[in-house]
Amino acid sequence: HNHVQSRGLASLKQPASLFAPLDTFHERHIGPDDAEASKMLAQLGYDSMESFISDAVPPTIRLGEHAVDMPPLSESQLHARAKELAAKNKSFKSYIGMGYHNAVVPPVILRNVMENPAWYTQYTPYQPEIAQGRLESLINFQTMVMSLTSMDIANASLLDEATAAAEGMVMSFVSAPKKKTFIVDAGVTTQTIAVLQTRAKGFGIKVVVGNAEALVEDQSLKQDVCGVLVQYPDVNGAIKDFGDLADKTHSLGALVVCATDLLALTKIKPPGEWGADVVVGNSARFGVPAGYGGPHAAFFAVTDKLKRKMPGRLVGRSRDAEGNLAYRLSLQTREQHIRRERATSNICTSQALLANMAAMYAVYHGSDGLRRISSKVHKFTQVFESAVKAMGYKSVNEHFFDTLTLDVSAVSSAKSVHALASAVSINLRPIDDHHVGITFDESVSPDELVKLLKVFASAASASAPTITELPEPDAPSIPTHLRRTSNYLSHPVFNKHHSETEMLRYINHLASKDLSLVHSMIPLGSCTMKLNSTSSMIPLSWPEFSTVHPFAPYDQVQGYHQIISELEEDLCKITGFAAASLQPNSGASGEYAGLCVIRAYHESRGQGHRDICLIPLSAHGTNPASAAMAGLKVVSVKVHPDGNLDLEDLKDKAEKHKNNLAAFMITYPSTFGVFEAGVQDACKIIHENGGQVYLDGANLNAQIGLTNPATCGGDVCHLNLHKTFAIPHGGGGPGVGPICVAEHLAPFLPSHPAMPVRGEKSIDAVSAAPFGSASINVISWAYIKMLGGKGLIDSTKIALLNANYMAKRLQGHYSLKYKNENGRVAHELLIDLAEFDKMAGLKVADFAKRLQDYGFHPPTCSWPIQTCMLIEPTESETLEELDRFCDAMIAIREEADDIISGKQPKDNNLLKNAPHPVSTLVASEWNRPYTREQAVYPLPWLREKKFWPSVSRIDDAYGDLNLICDCPSVEELAQVD
Amino acid sequence: HNHVQSRGLASLKQPASLFAPLDTFHERHIGPDDAEASKMLAQLGYDSMESFISDAVPPTIRLGEHAVDMPPLSESQLHARAKELAAKNKSFKSYIGMGYHNAVVPPVILRNVMENPAWYTQYTPYQPEIAQGRLESLINFQTMVMSLTSMDIANASLLDEATAAAEGMVMSFVSAPKKKTFIVDAGVTTQTIAVLQTRAKGFGIKVVVGNAEALVEDQSLKQDVCGVLVQYPDVNGAIKDFGDLADKTHSLGALVVCATDLLALTKIKPPGEWGADVVVGNSARFGVPAGYGGPHAAFFAVTDKLKRKMPGRLVGRSRDAEGNLAYRLSLQTREQHIRRERATSNICTSQALLANMAAMYAVYHGSDGLRRISSKVHKFTQVFESAVKAMGYKSVNEHFFDTLTLDVSAVSSAKSVHALASAVSINLRPIDDHHVGITFDESVSPDELVKLLKVFASAASASAPTITELPEPDAPSIPTHLRRTSNYLSHPVFNKHHSETEMLRYINHLASKDLSLVHSMIPLGSCTMKLNSTSSMIPLSWPEFSTVHPFAPYDQVQGYHQIISELEEDLCKITGFAAASLQPNSGASGEYAGLCVIRAYHESRGQGHRDICLIPLSAHGTNPASAAMAGLKVVSVKVHPDGNLDLEDLKDKAEKHKNNLAAFMITYPSTFGVFEAGVQDACKIIHENGGQVYLDGANLNAQIGLTNPATCGGDVCHLNLHKTFAIPHGGGGPGVGPICVAEHLAPFLPSHPAMPVRGEKSIDAVSAAPFGSASINVISWAYIKMLGGKGLIDSTKIALLNANYMAKRLQGHYSLKYKNENGRVAHELLIDLAEFDKMAGLKVADFAKRLQDYGFHPPTCSWPIQTCMLIEPTESETLEELDRFCDAMIAIREEADDIISGKQPKDNNLLKNAPHPVSTLVASEWNRPYTREQAVYPLPWLREKKFWPSVSRIDDAYGDLNLICDCPSVEELAQVD
Ligand SMILES: Cc1ncc(COP(=O)(O)O)c(C=O)c1O
Ligand SMILES: Cc1ncc(COP(=O)(O)O)c(C=O)c1O
Ligand SMILES: O=C([O-])O
Repeated sequence: HNHVQSRGLASLKQPASLFAPLDTFHERHIGPDDAEASKMLAQLGYDSMESFISDAVPPTIRLGEHAVDMPPLSESQLHARAKELAAKNKSFKSYIGMGYHNAVVPPVILRNVMENPAWYTQYTPYQPEIAQGRLESLINFQTMVMSLTSMDIANASLLDEATAAAEGMVMSFVSAPKKKTFIVDAGVTTQTIAVLQTRAKGFGIKVVVGNAEALVEDQSLKQDVCGVLVQYPDVNGAIKDFGDLADKTHSLGALVVCATDLLALTKIKPPGEWGADVVVGNSARFGVPAGYGGPHAAFFAVTDKLKRKMPGRLVGRSRDAEGNLAYRLSLQTREQHIRRERATSNICTSQALLANMAAMYAVYHGSDGLRRISSKVHKFTQVFESAVKAMGYKSVNEHFFDTLTLDVSAVSSAKSVHALASAVSINLRPIDDHHVGITFDESVSPDELVKLLKVFASAASASAPTITELPEPDAPSIPTHLRRTSNYLSHPVFNKHHSETEMLRYINHLASKDLSLVHSMIPLGSCTMKLNSTSSMIPLSWPEFSTVHPFAPYDQVQGYHQIISELEEDLCKITGFAAASLQPNSGASGEYAGLCVIRAYHESRGQGHRDICLIPLSAHGTNPASAAMAGLKVVSVKVHPDGNLDLEDLKDKAEKHKNNLAAFMITYPSTFGVFEAGVQDACKIIHENGGQVYLDGANLNAQIGLTNPATCGGDVCHLNLHKTFAIPHGGGGPGVGPICVAEHLAPFLPSHPAMPVRGEKSIDAVSAAPFGSASINVISWAYIKMLGGKGLIDSTKIALLNANYMAKRLQGHYSLKYKNENGRVAHELLIDLAEFDKMAGLKVADFAKRLQDYGFHPPTCSWPIQTCMLIEPTESETLEELDRFCDAMIAIREEADDIISGKQPKDNNLLKNAPHPVSTLVASEWNRPYTREQAVYPLPWLREKKFWPSVSRIDDAYGDLNLICDCPSVEELAQVD
Repeated sequence: HNHVQSRGLASLKQPASLFAPLDTFHERHIGPDDAEASKMLAQLGYDSMESFISDAVPPTIRLGEHAVDMPPLSESQLHARAKELAAKNKSFKSYIGMGYHNAVVPPVILRNVMENPAWYTQYTPYQPEIAQGRLESLINFQTMVMSLTSMDIANASLLDEATAAAEGMVMSFVSAPKKKTFIVDAGVTTQTIAVLQTRAKGFGIKVVVGNAEALVEDQSLKQDVCGVLVQYPDVNGAIKDFGDLADKTHSLGALVVCATDLLALTKIKPPGEWGADVVVGNSARFGVPAGYGGPHAAFFAVTDKLKRKMPGRLVGRSRDAEGNLAYRLSLQTREQHIRRERATSNICTSQALLANMAAMYAVYHGSDGLRRISSKVHKFTQVFESAVKAMGYKSVNEHFFDTLTLDVSAVSSAKSVHALASAVSINLRPIDDHHVGITFDESVSPDELVKLLKVFASAASASAPTITELPEPDAPSIPTHLRRTSNYLSHPVFNKHHSETEMLRYINHLASKDLSLVHSMIPLGSCTMKLNSTSSMIPLSWPEFSTVHPFAPYDQVQGYHQIISELEEDLCKITGFAAASLQPNSGASGEYAGLCVIRAYHESRGQGHRDICLIPLSAHGTNPASAAMAGLKVVSVKVHPDGNLDLEDLKDKAEKHKNNLAAFMITYPSTFGVFEAGVQDACKIIHENGGQVYLDGANLNAQIGLTNPATCGGDVCHLNLHKTFAIPHGGGGPGVGPICVAEHLAPFLPSHPAMPVRGEKSIDAVSAAPFGSASINVISWAYIKMLGGKGLIDSTKIALLNANYMAKRLQGHYSLKYKNENGRVAHELLIDLAEFDKMAGLKVADFAKRLQDYGFHPPTCSWPIQTCMLIEPTESETLEELDRFCDAMIAIREEADDIISGKQPKDNNLLKNAPHPVSTLVASEWNRPYTREQAVYPLPWLREKKFWPSVSRIDDAYGDLNLICDCPSVEELAQVD
């Protein structure tokens, strides 16, 4: 018998007490039931779970039984608790602006994208043949951004506007060697400036904030300027002509980065038409709920000449083996898993799901629909402006799109305007004692406009006009020469799905091309594709969570703060650390934040010179990239042939750099999928040499309740809530990468301009919103609450058991690259396919593509080792599913044997020709040395349960050579027909 | 130009006023935009919509422009209004029982079935090759019912428990010729007795209510007894042994009908083990929200010898052309479209979606999970019982499962118990001054139990025990010999999908086999498969609507009543009638209710003898079946070869039967798809001969705003809200079939025991719940509110235009069976395929199956004419989609030509072999006189947008001959492997 109590026939048993709830999450989350777990243990030669765990996890780091004691909530208890906390968020209407709006989410998109597991459980589209749906949607996103900004190329999203602006700054910096000054116009939002300040530090960039037009003419700066950032329209609402500024900036050899607003661009001259080199912004107002700050997709667009330097993922067109158009991720060689510390960006997980929502919004509204919306928003602002002017208020900005800055001093005070607004549940933007800001959006109804006017009238002791007294403005309040004249979104995809039925079918059609967790296991090593439970997702649709502005006053968001603090507390308990920050909105962002915290700590102790970061060669590419961004110099540490860290080498290097040693980054269990027994020794070496230990928590799924980063010897770690804590991957984001730190680092955790108290020693913001992608924290909070301590530990145990069972089943067929001295792997396993290349020219990709024919998403390929696959089953998969996957792998091994033995030719076989979409079956000719049946139904269960790739193998080189990153135009489609 | 303002590039234009909302539903609901409408009008030779409409709709019945003036609400306005009304429903916890419980809906089922358009927009699975998913789920439902009741066979759902009991009564009646007495035990619920009373009337059955055990021994009745109905456990909670009663009843040659509860059956001896012949009940507590009464699925199970008489749809196993297991609807020859007035049941639309939810609940919990749930429910009841006994209350029933009847008189009064309960938002069952009823269910938490005990303690001035003072009972309060000993739900399907991941995949896997509106148009004549908007569906998930008990006091359901009365009012405006009843929960149920109202009207005027009902031969089978059920004699009226009613024949028959003429039933526009100019004349004839006119409103989609049933001359009509008013079909239900009546019939509308006021002249209940499937009325209410008057009229116009455009495109390729004198059809068109049979042996089914290969759901086949297809596009389909469908039809016509001309053999061709699932492509051998490509990609767009049938053509005859209606067992599956 074993200690895991889980679901299944044998284990849906009576709970101990009559009064215990029955809708416990534990049994629904964990795949294998008691009987299955026992069977797996027996196959591995164990008679108890405990003896297995003792072999897998080094005893030196094991925790006591009650390390994560927390009572579980059942699914309905969780629901009730979430409702209770939701009710503590006050429902205010926010006109705060600053880049955040009240989005109107078209219900068809809400239900069929945001609330649809077929969309939200997808993985990043690295396997394009089974991901054409989301790739098409992401290229729609890129096209939308390119078209609205008038730029040559755009990526598939970044984390938020502030970090996108920071990427623009760094791009400017690396494009203008030796120039270190980056000018930031005073019209840029506070949160962006804060994030730039943080980011500038690591690169040694000098951020100068002020009037950009004046600053570019400043003789003392001129020669050192690498770039200029402007906000267009600016934070106060003004629309300035930056054409001149662009010319001047270019003449200095510097780049112009423009932060802008997609909706405004339907009305104003796009930055691409007045000389911007980089255009960034936030697409959230295109139908993505505010969610107290996120998640939402930022965009990033550049001119053609900068395209190969662009950070983030980029979807491009290519062709498949049959010559058909197919989409894929382009230019992956730019990314950190290739460039490592030479990468200038560490962005990995981005905001795919939210980019898809925004793109779908544009598809649904089309150019005319967007024009209607922007006209309404603009006219409401105009109507409001003239009405408050009539009351005696002054509008500071003559021109505007949706945002006004009012000088209230003639008739009232800012304090009294805010107080009156607050009394009727309205938030305005606080500026200073005499000014109040207000931003309009699509959501504002005529009644709300009248209510607003009443607030201002009352503050000015004036009378408010009624709706009928508000005349429609006759011309836009936009300078004539800055009005948009060019077309946008003329591509067919934006002009045919305007009825709900057509939209529904388009969403469904794209989803039908994509393999997600609704189909079969996605055993992606290092990515932990586990159950994303419905119970944890449901609250995200509640307005109490979805409609909150990130800068809403704290007293309005008590529910959110309760969740945030409970989650921080639980994460601290789980990691063994003292404090946490939920601000980083991806794992890589967490790495960066953690390293900045370490640097700040050293600085506070007069050790600011410490700038060496030791990183094992096995580390994820984001680690060295983050270190470089934090201004650290990366020194690589060797790894033994058995997969373990080379402690000798570590010691040598730590001692060599002892005076400058800042940090050591380590992933645990290692990226090779083993618990190294020497982890505590390694950390000790670092500490003895004055360094701090950063633990990359991507593999925390193997640790929870059995060990923790603090026990392993770390000082700080990030967690990927979108891995270990069940936030869905969304096809490549959103993510949350909180950091947890030991006591001595707590004072340095990131601050934010919108946080009421700022720690004296805090580093500045790393994300645009104070709590990052706040709304999805609810998912991880719910996950932990529902599993409780026992459920968390059982999940870890089964994650380990599942991986070891697979290792056992695959052994003899594939060579397991690494295991510990007891023959055990951790929660994932690395198999090496190098021999097949040697014997028959078969690459990792050939196995991966062939797995698609078996209805599975391939494991992580060629990472962390080029010739390997990294397989991670997670605890949510049942024994039956593990067996199906192993059967597939074993069958492929047999197919490979036929190629090795020469039964099948090396260039025309089941693996090289994989995947086989239906279209390959249709041709009358069949010139292949295997049957159609062998191609598509190699195992009997595939007849019932088959997922069809929608295209043949995609040509990667062709796509990168012929880089085209927008969707087909009318003309191109006409040619095809 | 035309008068239709709709969505699309050309028409997402600025609204007239700045203050008009932009999220108007009109443009999203209607498929064609202005440009498309103009194009279609031009093709038909019209330069305006008005001139087209004048040609299509007889001027004599046209209404003025403002016939349905109603302002529209935008989608967000509707949302806000629905929230406002939701807030008016008070949140009480109900322990009322009487067949209705608080269901716990597993979130994975809620989100992926109930909230998933891939499930809720499906049509009835008459095309089994593209419906294997829901057929499998429905057979799971049947299996679940058979297993829990221990009966030989069960159907795929009925409308509610009361009507299911009525079907059982009628089955008893027809099984025992000449016997007219049906005994109903006093333990049966009030609402069931009311529905039986209504139903008995038409058949001339004598319902005797009392102690069934005594009544079967009553000498005065004995010889006349056809059946006995018992409730098990009964309405008061008692569990009686009916074994003896069953024996006695059988010895009288009569049947035993047992109404029961699926959850109780996990604990008590199933009726199939003590001799019941028919077992009925409500499956709602298996995860279907109460929704103020519905919808939910009733079940109906019988012994083997009764199987061919069973009402409703029955899913059975069969085999496809390749010999594989495939599911289909069995024994359709039992149904009314075949048997017409000889049918004993008129059930057509049933409760497929809700049956699927209940089946999924059983799949998710399995036998052990259900056992856990029933044990908890039972033990809570026991714990409660002993605690209140200790306070001095008496429990009337010694044995019980979940329901107690308490005699409160020793310590309190019923009035004071109810008052105290109400004060803490608790509803108990009112019985009389001394008794209070209480029913427990899965949803009750320990805290709620304590709260309940406090109420009873306080009413008795006793003290309430705490949770820890409540001892767990040691034996069930069920008589030993009535405890269940047999196994249940041992089939594999109920024992493997217990983790959320597996459940999600199972739900998704089944959905992937089914074509629904998320894929392509479903042009089913007479079924109006239009958009089911997300905005109208969202409120159904709100607890304010979903958790309400149907017998909750009126003051708690003000929100519901506002919606119900607004909907009734709007339907009256639309039909031109004076009053409405929303009680009937299907179209057929509406027909029956309407005819009962007519009979009651005649009776009230001393004309009770009027019993002749004239019905055209073209009528839907439910019409004559309903007439027969209402005790009317059907006399058929001829139809002219041009499709019009034979007015001469009508006149002859009306005059012939003038003394006994009760009613005339007519569908308008006719089931042949034309507006007959003579409708008013026909109605006049009827009225002149003392009859009333019943208008079958299935085709109301062609009328709204242009004409109405009152103007046409009707006295009563039913509407199919699940057709015209956008309630989704759910794969064969739910439905709502309200009736609207003229002033003189209003006093006769159905009453219900739970309605506070009963009209003096009202007929008794026709449904178990006072407002039928109350929750989904919200959908139609929202539909009407969002479209407003103009949107409704434009929808009608486009529905007519779309149909006429298709008729035009198909002409020359297919012969249009009927059109009016201007060459126009109504909202649907009938094409006759008889010639193909004559020329080449090609049947309607061959065309239908071939359409599946083109990715379309076939139109209605062989109804109302055997050799025809009835095509109804609805207003929600765009021109592009209509063209795709017409292209497919035309391409099939060309394929047929090749068969006619002998190019392709008559027995082996594209049509006869259709559909072609992927499996047919896989075989290496291809012995067909056409290519694989011709088989599956006959038109180019299919390469991108193809829906694959999951099996080959299914053998109907085989299935009916080898009737097997449960899912495969462990042993059978083992054989397959
Ligand atoms: C080991 C490791 N570290 C860091 C990351 C980066 O996390 P993110 O993608 O959330 O930025 C990953 C992501 O795959 C990872 O596997
Ligand atoms: C003309 C007509 N009358 C009546 C009905 C019966 O309606 P229901 O299926 O809702 O019982 C139908 C259903 O298809 C119909 O087409
Ligand atoms: O549903 C019909 O039977 O037409």
